[in-house]
Amino acid sequence: MGEAMRWMDGFIAVDWGTTNRRGYRIDSSGECPGEFEDGKGILSVPSGGFPAAVAEIRERLGDHPLLLAGMIGSNRGWVEAPYVPCPGGIDELAAALVWPGEREAIVPGMSYVGQGRADVMRGEEVQLLGGVASGLVDPEGFVCHPGTHNKWALLRHGKLQTFGTVMTGELFNLLKEHSILCDLLQGPVEVNDAFRQGVRDAMERELLPASLFGIRAAVLLGQKPKEDAPSYTSGLLIGTDVRIGLTWPLTAQIAVMGRPELTRLYAAAIAESGRETIELDGERCFLAGIGEIAKRIS
Amino acid sequence: MGEAMRWMDGFIAVDWGTTNRRGYRIDSSGECPGEFEDGKGILSVPSGGFPAAVAEIRERLGDHPLLLAGMIGSNRGWVEAPYVPCPGGIDELAAALVWPGEREAIVPGMSYVGQGRADVMRGEEVQLLGGVASGLVDPEGFVCHPGTHNKWALLRHGKLQTFGTVMTGELFNLLKEHSILCDLLQGPVEVNDAFRQGVRDAMERELLPASLFGIRAAVLLGQKPKEDAPSYTSGLLIGTDVRIGLTWPLTAQIAVMGRPELTRLYAAAIAESGRETIELDGERCFLAGIGEIAKRIS
Repeated sequence: MGEAMRWMDGFIAVDWGTTNRRGYRIDSSGECPGEFEDGKGILSVPSGGFPAAVAEIRERLGDHPLLLAGMIGSNRGWVEAPYVPCPGGIDELAAALVWPGEREAIVPGMSYVGQGRADVMRGEEVQLLGGVASGLVDPEGFVCHPGTHNKWALLRHGKLQTFGTVMTGELFNLLKEHSILCDLLQGPVEVNDAFRQGVRDAMERELLPASLFGIRAAVLLGQKPKEDAPSYTSGLLIGTDVRIGLTWPLTAQIAVMGRPELTRLYAAAIAESGRETIELDGERCFLAGIGEIAKRIS
Repeated sequence: MGEAMRWMDGFIAVDWGTTNRRGYRIDSSGECPGEFEDGKGILSVPSGGFPAAVAEIRERLGDHPLLLAGMIGSNRGWVEAPYVPCPGGIDELAAALVWPGEREAIVPGMSYVGQGRADVMRGEEVQLLGGVASGLVDPEGFVCHPGTHNKWALLRHGKLQTFGTVMTGELFNLLKEHSILCDLLQGPVEVNDAFRQGVRDAMERELLPASLFGIRAAVLLGQKPKEDAPSYTSGLLIGTDVRIGLTWPLTAQIAVMGRPELTRLYAAAIAESGRETIELDGERCFLAGIGEIAKRIS
């Protein structure tokens, strides 16, 4: 009970990803008087280095209990937190916390197996369920959560029912950093005519790996301005992603959750299909979700 | 005329790609008494270094005229040889040779613009048209030419009518070398049940960027053996490629041309669709095509 009292006094929430982490000091009233973000994702922490990495977080935000979410619970993280299977909600996540120490808890990811496919997530579940808890997301809604790996998530009775991952962000990064298209993809991605054309091309034709090479050919042959390539390529990839997402059972409105620079692109792409979207800030949803989990620690 | 005589006495043919080159001594009877392959692709040749790289070829194969094909004619090569537009055949290639010196000729690549798309090739045109010239490919046929960038090519009256490129090989390499799937993709690719399942999954559903992440999830959740991942992933990518190719106007039989380790995979994937294939060795077709071009030099 002393331990529970300490959580009610406030805690530190960390969204700890592969390449970045964000820490938040949450006080007893749920406010966030301090936070930081840095590049110390799990891959930068040496073997056995997590206790030190955690101590460093407490040096920055105070000596409080820690609630950690994201890839920190993967097999490359501190302690592996087994996936909670769908359907599941905040209660199921709170019941499956993994405790590396008495004052540190790791939120598990979630998994889906069925319909001939398998999928996993770590981190997005806190945001998705936090969105529901804070009233921003319909408990029967459908959410698009772009990132390195975009998640399409279906909610039922406020729990995560099923979801599907599309490797869009990672494919764009691979093409930009290592492919034959890399010299064409260094410019900014904008929601412009080239982006919308990429979205429409992707929605009309099933030709992604063909269309990609066509970008280079079109520039070489003077059929497309080189400056259009980043936006067009992004449109093509996101359009393919949206085409896949729209094969799901749909609610009237699609919530697009995540970092604003990405939700903007997806909302524009979904709009090309004539669907309505609402953009939600992923950080706000994360804080709502992690707060709900903390309430259940006793 | 003295120059023409010298070509009739024999020449050196080089298939000079981005990362590799193959040289062949062709004698006056069309036989090939000497050849070599090395890693001196165009990207390894320093600026201004092509005369030295060519001299080195003559040191190996003798002091003969050189006929060069492939990326050597690109804007990263020795001298840029502008694309010959479709439709075009051996005569059009021979008429558009570019001469960096009196005894060195570069074969241009080919381009296609139409139907709202653009495409280019450099090197495959010699093989495709060589296949026709040697009677191995139907002058009205349809050819699949796998490589880093697979080409689907439609022939009419023995000329290249149109073609489309699919970035399959490059996508597989990007995933193998740089993606979240890289640790799963290091093993060998075999034509086995996992490969065929990947092909069938790709043909049934339009979900490539979703299915890719699903491979990782399926292994993590114990739904798929890790050893199957390379073959399944290859099947998924090649199946997507074949699905795109089979939307083209088809002849009864599809010629699959190229390196045997790749034509084997594509032939197996095309067979899943119930189509007949014939596998053709790309090197043999290259020698036939380059010989036809040399005959037209006068």
